[in-house]
Amino acid sequence: MDAQEPKTPTAWRDITPDAARRLVIAAVEAFAERGYHATTTRDIASRAGMSPAALYIHYKTKEELLYQISRVGHLLSLGLLTEARDGAGPPAARLEAAVRAFVRWHAEHHTTGRVVQYELGALGPEHYAEIVDLRRTTEGVIRSIVTDGVAAGDFDVPDVSGTTLAVLSLCIDVARWFNPDGRRTPDEVGELYAGLVSRMVGARTA
Amino acid sequence: MDAQEPKTPTAWRDITPDAARRLVIAAVEAFAERGYHATTTRDIASRAGMSPAALYIHYKTKEELLYQISRVGHLLSLGLLTEARDGAGPPAARLEAAVRAFVRWHAEHHTTGRVVQYELGALGPEHYAEIVDLRRTTEGVIRSIVTDGVAAGDFDVPDVSGTTLAVLSLCIDVARWFNPDGRRTPDEVGELYAGLVSRMVGARTA
Repeated sequence: MDAQEPKTPTAWRDITPDAARRLVIAAVEAFAERGYHATTTRDIASRAGMSPAALYIHYKTKEELLYQISRVGHLLSLGLLTEARDGAGPPAARLEAAVRAFVRWHAEHHTTGRVVQYELGALGPEHYAEIVDLRRTTEGVIRSIVTDGVAAGDFDVPDVSGTTLAVLSLCIDVARWFNPDGRRTPDEVGELYAGLVSRMVGARTA
Repeated sequence: MDAQEPKTPTAWRDITPDAARRLVIAAVEAFAERGYHATTTRDIASRAGMSPAALYIHYKTKEELLYQISRVGHLLSLGLLTEARDGAGPPAARLEAAVRAFVRWHAEHHTTGRVVQYELGALGPEHYAEIVDLRRTTEGVIRSIVTDGVAAGDFDVPDVSGTTLAVLSLCIDVARWFNPDGRRTPDEVGELYAGLVSRMVGARTA
């Protein structure tokens, strides 16, 4: 499976110190290649050019690394959606902006996206609960734009919660199939999907 | 992560003898729980209540089991789509029937769907090529219904290949998020999605 992604994805640039950031990047690659359960902390340390003891300074367990990856990934994509929701313009424009940003994120960080989605069940109970909470918040942001559009009479949505779920699902699945060597750039997929989602909500402009 | 699925999913009922079928079911469960790379043939045999030697009679390698799961899964869902494409009625009705069936399949066989999607990269080169070919055929079936609808003037689709990809992606991702204890039945999700896809293709009836 393709696991190509920029060597230092923008997602991780705020993780300090440098060693902690290198470990996160190494962990994403290792989890994507072999799966979480088949990866050891030794594998991750060696991939980052560090000793297991050096890894231990930053992350006590493999699960802590997975949690860090999930947390940062969810917070960043949630930030993009929140920005789009709070932007200027009518609901249709804000929904399109949200979809463009969310899709681009999943295309650009497809390796991270796969790890975060596929290994969700490997998180410990507290971390899992925290990530599920972030996912509910993310869903809430999309739902609020859809609800705004319905209230304004701009959207025609018989099932707001089901449609919100479908919009999220469509965008998230970009991480599964996106291929950086493929026909479409992240921006092009974002543009295509913004139009499709406008249709899904029956936006008047569509 | 939830991995609940009927003990003998209909997907496997045609695999004979009984021991081979039990091994496939055990493999799906094991791969879903721990990932392909962290599962051994010994784990699978023991889960099926068999010895490693007995497993070896039916499947020479773990990869052969994964291939069997992928092949049967893809052939069955392709069969459902082909049936819908070749059915009676205008393109809009055939597309809705295809989406209903494909979504229901991914909801009912969500554990299998996850394994097939997440572990695609673990197939050997020949098996991988064969599965990719089945996926192209699957995509072709959806695309042909969309093309029929455009030709008949029933659909308005600026980007047939991109829209086809999005429709497939939306349906496939049901396997990731579907929860049998959740609010919606497979039929309800199928119905919702049939309506959303009609909108995505700008079907006149929508």
